[in-house]
Amino acid sequence: MNQDFVISVPTFVQVLEFIGTFAFAISGIRLASAKRFDWFGAYVVGVATAIGGGTIRDLMLNLTPFWMTNSVYLICSALALLGVILFGKFLISQQNTFFIFDTIGLALFTVVGVEKTLHLDFPLWVAIIMGTITGAAGGVIRDVFINEVPLIFRKEIYAMACVIGGLVYGLCSYLNFDIIVTEIISGISVFLARILAVKYHWDLPVLKGDSTTMQQ
Amino acid sequence: MNQDFVISVPTFVQVLEFIGTFAFAISGIRLASAKRFDWFGAYVVGVATAIGGGTIRDLMLNLTPFWMTNSVYLICSALALLGVILFGKFLISQQNTFFIFDTIGLALFTVVGVEKTLHLDFPLWVAIIMGTITGAAGGVIRDVFINEVPLIFRKEIYAMACVIGGLVYGLCSYLNFDIIVTEIISGISVFLARILAVKYHWDLPVLKGDSTTMQQ
Amino acid sequence: MNQDFVISVPTFVQVLEFIGTFAFAISGIRLASAKRFDWFGAYVVGVATAIGGGTIRDLMLNLTPFWMTNSVYLICSALALLGVILFGKFLISQQNTFFIFDTIGLALFTVVGVEKTLHLDFPLWVAIIMGTITGAAGGVIRDVFINEVPLIFRKEIYAMACVIGGLVYGLCSYLNFDIIVTEIISGISVFLARILAVKYHWDLPVLKGDSTTMQQ
Repeated sequence: MNQDFVISVPTFVQVLEFIGTFAFAISGIRLASAKRFDWFGAYVVGVATAIGGGTIRDLMLNLTPFWMTNSVYLICSALALLGVILFGKFLISQQNTFFIFDTIGLALFTVVGVEKTLHLDFPLWVAIIMGTITGAAGGVIRDVFINEVPLIFRKEIYAMACVIGGLVYGLCSYLNFDIIVTEIISGISVFLARILAVKYHWDLPVLKGDSTTMQQ
Repeated sequence: MNQDFVISVPTFVQVLEFIGTFAFAISGIRLASAKRFDWFGAYVVGVATAIGGGTIRDLMLNLTPFWMTNSVYLICSALALLGVILFGKFLISQQNTFFIFDTIGLALFTVVGVEKTLHLDFPLWVAIIMGTITGAAGGVIRDVFINEVPLIFRKEIYAMACVIGGLVYGLCSYLNFDIIVTEIISGISVFLARILAVKYHWDLPVLKGDSTTMQQ
Repeated sequence: MNQDFVISVPTFVQVLEFIGTFAFAISGIRLASAKRFDWFGAYVVGVATAIGGGTIRDLMLNLTPFWMTNSVYLICSALALLGVILFGKFLISQQNTFFIFDTIGLALFTVVGVEKTLHLDFPLWVAIIMGTITGAAGGVIRDVFINEVPLIFRKEIYAMACVIGGLVYGLCSYLNFDIIVTEIISGISVFLARILAVKYHWDLPVLKGDSTTMQQ
């Protein structure tokens, strides 16, 4: 029975990872389609959104980028493209569903990033940054590719949800919680932080500098 | 005689590599000049166009970036800058010549990227991606630097030619063709794919999503 | 006494490094505030400006990014954010002071980059490039994040000051100067090159290509 549990948990995580990758890719492909990218361009933006954060993390941790050892991530992104080509308007209208999937992806990616970093014996603060990069940097690359100011720099508690999840992970570890429990609590805290932030319009304050200070 | 062949082939490849680097650098420098960059900015954009793809590939493969072990790539780019400074209008008017050189560079860079990756025992699909990154990512960096939406995401069979070349490489390897023959057929297929695509206006379809979905 | 010297020099360098990181972060945060980024976005832009160049250098040299082994750089950037939040208008008005601090940072980062690269037995020309990347690439990332054409590509002797400092470092090494003396002379040459360039409006020529060659 314990054996079953050990086997079923990774499978469940893998399904979540599939859903998260798919949702992240959709978010990239949608914005690419609004810019009238061709299929190839849309695929690259979708892939970059889905795997960009984890790739930067792995380069900084001196690991082989995770997607180079398993083709499932690129296949997920290809399915996302196929979905948008075949069911474009329907898929794009499901905004609430994708918001939930996207947030599941964010939670999972954050936990994976935190854990991978701690396994390499980096301190917690590095792990929190790597978790945040895993969850949020793909969206920054997406916005650079479509030539927009990155969305997460201007609105929404998005990356902050990753930071909160990383802190919760550290707290649970400190309290010697079981690793599975720690993962679940940490992931749920990312999920809740973002859902609540969007529902109650929690925003970080905008930085008020001299508004005339434009780049010269 | 066979000995001669072994010696002359790398030399011929090096000449192609010189031409390709020069042509890629010119493409960056031309766009930088249209944005009124200074000499330094134009050089950086030229260098990034010429070596950016290979650098990203080498970082992902955990190798030292190729241009750090041989100064010829930066010298080629400097010659390209010098060429534009001295013969700007003439060089820029040679659009057809540069189109051919640029496509030779694309073919060669793709083959180098595929081969380098396969030598590290990655599977073919990773090699195809690395070949495509080697050939096409420099142009994406160039367009990010000049603050434009990357050209290859919106028009032209460009990166797809790299993908085709990678597939052909894999097919030739599978058929146990000699490595030199494999390289030549693969490179020619990249070259032809792009030339034919431009001549006959083969484009990938534009992704039709909800055109009102702009970034909010 | 010699012992004291050995101990006091790193401390002095560390203070300069603190000042440089703070000044670089301020430059990123100021521009982010002009774009109405929130606190998180401003922090990320500040951090990227301060540590982005060194991170790219370390990835290319296959080292763990320097800021992952010492939290002081992220703390400096957080203090810069706190400073702008609390004393925004005052801080932003101190343009001359920050110009000096920023130039001290540029000089120090350049010397650190050159030295780190030479210690790994790369040739001088690679070290000069790495010194320039350490000093100047953070500002390029900053400008990509705020969706502007990178400032250093269009005006000001900025990156060229790094190149000059690297050449001076190489010359001093060639003349067998003591390492501390080499560092100081090289840093001062970066500092002076930039100060004098701004004071006397030394600019690199703008590249004159065909001004109608826009990206098609």
